[in-house]
Amino acid sequence: MDGNFHQGDFTLPGEAGYEQLTLELAKKWGADMIRDSDGTKLSDEIVQAGYGIYSTICIIRQHNAFAVAHPDAQQQTFLCSDPVMAAENSVTIHPLAGFFEEQFQINDGPDALPYWQVYDRTSGLEVPKENWRYENGAVTVSPAAPWHEYTVSFLAWRIWEEINMYNHTTNNWQSEHLRQLDPRHPLAWEYLQGWLRQWCEENPDTTVVRFTSLFYNFVWIFGSDMRRRNRFTDWASYDFTVSPAALSAFEKQYGYALTAEDFINQGKLQVTHMPPTAHKRDWMDFIQAFVAEKAKVLVDIVHAYGKKAYVFYDDSWVGLEPYGKRFASMGFDGLIKCIFSGFECRLCAGAEVPTHEIRLHPYLFPVGLGGLPTFAEGGHPEKDALDYWRSARRALLRQCVDRIGLGGYLHLTQGQPAFVDTIQRIGVEFRKIKALQKEGPAYTLPIRVAVLHTWGALRSWTLSGHFHETYMHPLIHINEALSGLPVEVKFISFADAENGALEGCDAVINAGRAGDAWSGGDAWKSDKLVEKLNEFVYNGGCFIGVNEPSAVPGYSTCFRMAPVLGIDLDTGAKVCHGRWAYNLDKSLPIFEGSGDLKDKDHLYLTDGKARVLAEANGVPQMTVHSFGKGQGVYMSDFCVSPQNTRMLLEVLLYAAGLSENAPYITGDCRTEAAYYPSSKTLIVINNSQNYLETSVSLPDDNWLSVSLSPMETKEISL
Amino acid sequence: MDGNFHQGDFTLPGEAGYEQLTLELAKKWGADMIRDSDGTKLSDEIVQAGYGIYSTICIIRQHNAFAVAHPDAQQQTFLCSDPVMAAENSVTIHPLAGFFEEQFQINDGPDALPYWQVYDRTSGLEVPKENWRYENGAVTVSPAAPWHEYTVSFLAWRIWEEINMYNHTTNNWQSEHLRQLDPRHPLAWEYLQGWLRQWCEENPDTTVVRFTSLFYNFVWIFGSDMRRRNRFTDWASYDFTVSPAALSAFEKQYGYALTAEDFINQGKLQVTHMPPTAHKRDWMDFIQAFVAEKAKVLVDIVHAYGKKAYVFYDDSWVGLEPYGKRFASMGFDGLIKCIFSGFECRLCAGAEVPTHEIRLHPYLFPVGLGGLPTFAEGGHPEKDALDYWRSARRALLRQCVDRIGLGGYLHLTQGQPAFVDTIQRIGVEFRKIKALQKEGPAYTLPIRVAVLHTWGALRSWTLSGHFHETYMHPLIHINEALSGLPVEVKFISFADAENGALEGCDAVINAGRAGDAWSGGDAWKSDKLVEKLNEFVYNGGCFIGVNEPSAVPGYSTCFRMAPVLGIDLDTGAKVCHGRWAYNLDKSLPIFEGSGDLKDKDHLYLTDGKARVLAEANGVPQMTVHSFGKGQGVYMSDFCVSPQNTRMLLEVLLYAAGLSENAPYITGDCRTEAAYYPSSKTLIVINNSQNYLETSVSLPDDNWLSVSLSPMETKEISL
Repeated sequence: MDGNFHQGDFTLPGEAGYEQLTLELAKKWGADMIRDSDGTKLSDEIVQAGYGIYSTICIIRQHNAFAVAHPDAQQQTFLCSDPVMAAENSVTIHPLAGFFEEQFQINDGPDALPYWQVYDRTSGLEVPKENWRYENGAVTVSPAAPWHEYTVSFLAWRIWEEINMYNHTTNNWQSEHLRQLDPRHPLAWEYLQGWLRQWCEENPDTTVVRFTSLFYNFVWIFGSDMRRRNRFTDWASYDFTVSPAALSAFEKQYGYALTAEDFINQGKLQVTHMPPTAHKRDWMDFIQAFVAEKAKVLVDIVHAYGKKAYVFYDDSWVGLEPYGKRFASMGFDGLIKCIFSGFECRLCAGAEVPTHEIRLHPYLFPVGLGGLPTFAEGGHPEKDALDYWRSARRALLRQCVDRIGLGGYLHLTQGQPAFVDTIQRIGVEFRKIKALQKEGPAYTLPIRVAVLHTWGALRSWTLSGHFHETYMHPLIHINEALSGLPVEVKFISFADAENGALEGCDAVINAGRAGDAWSGGDAWKSDKLVEKLNEFVYNGGCFIGVNEPSAVPGYSTCFRMAPVLGIDLDTGAKVCHGRWAYNLDKSLPIFEGSGDLKDKDHLYLTDGKARVLAEANGVPQMTVHSFGKGQGVYMSDFCVSPQNTRMLLEVLLYAAGLSENAPYITGDCRTEAAYYPSSKTLIVINNSQNYLETSVSLPDDNWLSVSLSPMETKEISL
Repeated sequence: MDGNFHQGDFTLPGEAGYEQLTLELAKKWGADMIRDSDGTKLSDEIVQAGYGIYSTICIIRQHNAFAVAHPDAQQQTFLCSDPVMAAENSVTIHPLAGFFEEQFQINDGPDALPYWQVYDRTSGLEVPKENWRYENGAVTVSPAAPWHEYTVSFLAWRIWEEINMYNHTTNNWQSEHLRQLDPRHPLAWEYLQGWLRQWCEENPDTTVVRFTSLFYNFVWIFGSDMRRRNRFTDWASYDFTVSPAALSAFEKQYGYALTAEDFINQGKLQVTHMPPTAHKRDWMDFIQAFVAEKAKVLVDIVHAYGKKAYVFYDDSWVGLEPYGKRFASMGFDGLIKCIFSGFECRLCAGAEVPTHEIRLHPYLFPVGLGGLPTFAEGGHPEKDALDYWRSARRALLRQCVDRIGLGGYLHLTQGQPAFVDTIQRIGVEFRKIKALQKEGPAYTLPIRVAVLHTWGALRSWTLSGHFHETYMHPLIHINEALSGLPVEVKFISFADAENGALEGCDAVINAGRAGDAWSGGDAWKSDKLVEKLNEFVYNGGCFIGVNEPSAVPGYSTCFRMAPVLGIDLDTGAKVCHGRWAYNLDKSLPIFEGSGDLKDKDHLYLTDGKARVLAEANGVPQMTVHSFGKGQGVYMSDFCVSPQNTRMLLEVLLYAAGLSENAPYITGDCRTEAAYYPSSKTLIVINNSQNYLETSVSLPDDNWLSVSLSPMETKEISL
C-alpha cells in the first residue's frame, strides 16, 4: 500500500494561548481541521493558519440574557416527587424535595398546573383534583387514605443546561450557569435563527459548524443529596422534550392528550431499556418530526453562508437518531460520534450522511467519565488511547469512517510524549485502513446476523449511551463483539421479524432480561412472531438467546422460544418438576465460555435433548439444541472478551455449517484478521499487549503463520 | 430430675425371624410398643411378648385381587402429554409418551374421554373437540396451526401404588406391584370397610392400628427415561385425588364443573409452592371433606374393636392435614410424623390430637432417601441419628412430643453397636425433655412471630414435604431456625393478616420468591393487607422480608412493603435510576450473615435510610430500616446454620427492643438453652461436635459459665 498516511482526515482541538503547540501537533498528527471545544476558544493565529476550522455550537445554550428576559422560553420536564406515606387522613408533599435545586424550579404557571397529577401509589389510582391543593410550594392531599403512599407529578423548569452542569461539577468550573432555550417557544425560535445567522456572519473562517448537538439533552436528573447526586440518567429518554406547548400541540395533532403519568410511569419514567407504550412511541415520533424540521432550517442557514454543518451525536441529540427515518432529511454534511467502543464506530460508519467522523478518547480533560485521572496525576493517557483504539480498530476494519479527531484542552498533552506518539500512530493506522476500504470492502463470511429487539434499526448498535452506561445489559456486549466480526449485521424489530426481515438471515440474536426492550416483553405475545421464528429455525436458521430471551408471562413456557432452545426458565411453577440429567458436551467446535457466564438459577432442559456446553452449580448455562434443520443456542449471559467474542463467532460458524473451512480466521483469539480482496491485502491485528504467534486460515485450506508484536496492525499481501 | 428415663414412650420396629434381636433391643431402648413396617411382619413370638402392638395398614393398598376384578375402582390422575409442535397443518400426539408405563395407563373410557382436552400451547387456546380425534392410542389435531405446540390433557389410571413403586425401585423388590383403590368407588368403599373389620377381628393382639396413611398419595409422576425418572413430585398436591366420579360429585356440590386445565395448568400443574386458584381451593375443600368423612368411618371401626387408631402423616396423607379444620373430627388417637428436621417435630407436637409421636431417622433401610448408604457399606447410621437428633432436640426443648420410634428392618442394626447405643442415649434424652415439660413449659421470650404466607395455618411449619425436598425455598430454612428458638410462632394467611391476626404480634416474616405461595403473589394486590402491615410496623412491629417478599407486578415498587423495608428490587424499569451510596453498618447487635446470603442483583435502597448490614458486589443484601416506631428488615436469602439461626434471633430481639437483657441466651451460637421455670431447670445443649465453653444469660444480668462435651444435653438446676 502506497500513500502518505501521515496527513489528513484528522480534527485537532486547538487552544488559544497555546498557538505554537496547536500548530506543532497539527503537523505531527497530520490534522487538516482544527476545532474548538466546550470551554476552549481558538485565537486568530490558529484560525488563520490555513487549516479548515470546526466551530462548536450548542445552539440552545449560551443565551442567558434572552433566557432571563424570557424565562418561559426555557426547557422543562415532568418530575415525580419522592413518595410520602400518609399516617393519618391527610398528607403534605413538597414536590421538589430531594431534587437538585440548581437544576430545577417548579413550574406552577397557569398552563402547567393543569398537567400536575397526584397519585395514590398504594392503590395505583390518581387522586381527584378536588382532593388535593397546592399552596405555598406544597401539595396537601385531603382526604388521604392512611398507610397509602402519595406522589406529585409536576412540571419543572430546567434552569441549568445539563452538559454545562456536568462540566461545572466535574471540572469545578466557576463560571455562570448556562441556561437552555426551547426552540418550540416562538420568540426563542426566531431569536435562535437570527443568532445563528449573525454567528455565521461573525465567523467567516469557520468551514464547518459543529452542532453539539441540537435541542434536547438526554435525561440527567440530579438529586440534592450527594449520596445520590445522580437520580436518573437515560441517554435516549425523551423526558426533556416536554412542555405545555408541546403537549398541547401533540393533542391537536394526535387527537388525544398525554398526561404526566405517560412520562412518570409510577415514578419509574419511560426508560429506553423497557418497551415503550404506544403513547410514548407517538410522542417520540412527534418530537422527531419537530427536531428534523427545525434542524433543517438551521442547516439551511449554515449552508447559506457556504459552510458545512456537522452534528455531534451525543449530548442534546434527542430526536435526531442517525438511523431514524428523518435523519437524512435534515441535510447534515457530517456525523461526529464520540467513541469508546467498536459498536459506536459501526454506528457512525453506517449512518446515511456524507462524512463520518469519530472523536477518539481519552478526551483531553484531567479526568475521564468514570472519575479516574487521565491527564492528571496517576493517569496514563497513552494507555487509555490504545485501549480505546483496540476496540475501534477491529470495528473500522469491518467498516471504516472518514475522519478521526480529538477534543478537549490541548495543553494537557504537554509532558505526555507517549500519548502524542500514540495518537500519531493511531492516525497512520486509521488512514491505512481507510485507504484499503477505498479499494474495496473487507471479505465477509456468508453469515447474516439479525439482532432482534424492540427498537430495531432505530437503535442500531447502541442501546442507550456508551458501554459503561449499559454494561449490565448483555446485548451491548454482543453488539461490541459483533462490531469487529467478519459477518453481516442488521438490527430488526419484532414487527420487522413478522414482516419478512428474517428472509436472508442465518442467525437471529435476542438478548435481554425478561420484560426489557432487548428481550422484548409483551412483543412475544404475538403468535405470528413465534411462528415466524420457529419456521426460520426449523428450515435451517439459528436462534441465539441470551439471559432471558423471548420471556413473557402467561404461557406454558417462560421463554416463548423454549421449543427451539430446548431450555427454559422456571419462574416458580415448575419447582416440583424433575430436571433432566445431562453430561457436559465437549464435542462441539465452540469455545467453552462457562467462566464468563452468569451463575443463573432456575434454568432447566425442556425435552432433555439440548447439548449442555457449560453449567454452574448443576444448572445448564450454555446449550445447543437441534430444531428441524436449524439450531437454538442459549447462553445465560454474554460478557465481551477475546474468548467470548471468538465463542460467538464459532457459534455462528457452527450454525452456518462453516466450522471447518472458514477463511481468514486466526488461530489465537487475541488476534483477528480482515482480508481485502480488491487490494489482495490481509490485515492481522494483535489485540493484546503480548508478542504472539498466530495462524490465519486461507481459502485453500492452508494456514498462514504470523508473528505479531503487542497491539500490532500487520499488513500482508496475498 | 428423678425418674426412669430408660423405659417407655418408644416404638420399636419388630421383625419376624429376628425375635431375639427384637426383644433385646426392645429392652435396651426401653420400648413399650412394637410395630411392623412396610415390608416386615411380626411373628407370634414378638406379638405375644407383652408389648403393645402397632400394626401398619395402608388401607387402599394390598387389594390386588379386588383391583383386578374392579379395574374401574383404581385411582386416577390427570396427565398432560409432552408438547408436540406442528410442522404442517396436522399433528399427532401419543399422550403417554415419556411417562412410566408401569405407573400409568390411559383412561379412555366413556366417562373419562369427555374430560380430555387438547390445547394449542402457543396461542394458549383450547382446540375445539371437533378439531381433534383419538384413535389407536393417539390424538390427531387437524387442522393444526403450523409452528404451534399442542398438548393432550387426559385421564390415566394409576396402576402401581406409588410408595410401593418407590420401595421397589429403591430396594430392588421383586414382588407383585401393588395397586390402589379409590374409596370414592362405592364397591371399593364397601369392600374396604369390610376388609378393615375382618382385619381387626384377625388381629386381636394389635393395640394400635397405624394408618399409613389414608387414601391419596402425594403426587409422584415417574417418566420412562431414566435421565428424568422423576417427572414431578409435590408432597402436598391434590392431583392424585381426581376421577370422573369425584369431578361429577364436585360439580353437583359446587355448581360448576372443573376441567382438566384446572389441574394441568399449562403443563405446570398446581404446585403447593404457588398460590392456588379459587378452583383449586374449592377442590381441596371438597377432597378434605371426603377424606375426613371416610376417615371417621374407619376410625370408628377400629375403635369398635377396642383398638386405637393412629395416623402416619406421610405417604397417602392428602386431605388429612393436621392443621386443617377437619383433622380433630376424624377422631384419631395419635399422629405419627417421620422427621428429619426440627420443624417436623413442631408440626407434630402442635397438632390437636391426644398422642404425638415422631419416627426418628435414619429409617432402618440399607440406603437413605438421598440414595446414600446408611445401613450399607460406607454408612454411618449412628452419625446420621445424631445429626437428625441435633435438629429434633432443640425443637423438642420448645414443645415436646409424647413418643418416639423407629421404622424399617431391625436386623440391619446388627453389627452397629454405636447406632444401638446412640438410640438408647436419644431415648433417655427425649424422656428427660418430656418429663421437664410435664412439669411446665419452657420459658419463652415475649416475642410473638407470625409467619405470613398463602396457606397460613393449614401449612404450619412444613411447606410441602421434607427439608431436602424444599431446601430451595428460604422459608423452610426460616421455619427450621424458628423451630428451636425461644419465641412464640404462628402461621397466618394473608386473609388472616387482614382480619386481625397481626394483633398481639411482634414480628411478621414473609419469605419467598416473587409470585410463589410463600411470598404471596397476587395476594399483595390487596391494599388492605398493605395498610394493615404498614400500620403494624409504624406502631412498633417488625416486618422481616426474605428474598422477594411482598413482590407483585403492577405497582410503583416491586416489593409492596418497600416503604417499610427501605429496599426494593428493580425488575428492569429502574435500571437508569441512580443508586444510593452507603457504608456498611456494623453498629447493630446482629451477627453478620453475609457469607450465607445470596449474591442477589438488582436490589436498591429506596430512600437511602436503610442501614446496610451486608452486601455482595456492591449490592445491599441485608438491611434494617426504621419505619415509624418499628423496623423493616430485609435479607436476600436465609440458609439455616447456627450463625444464621442466631442472627434471626438477634434480629427479633433487636426489633423487640430486647437486645441487651434477654435471659437464657447462650454466648456461643453453637449452643442453645431452654429454661423450665416450674422445675427451675436449665437445659443447655451443644449442637456441635466440639468441646465448648459457653455462657448463658440469666434474668439478674448475670452470666452462667457452662462447659459442654460434644452434642451434650446438660441439665442445670437454678
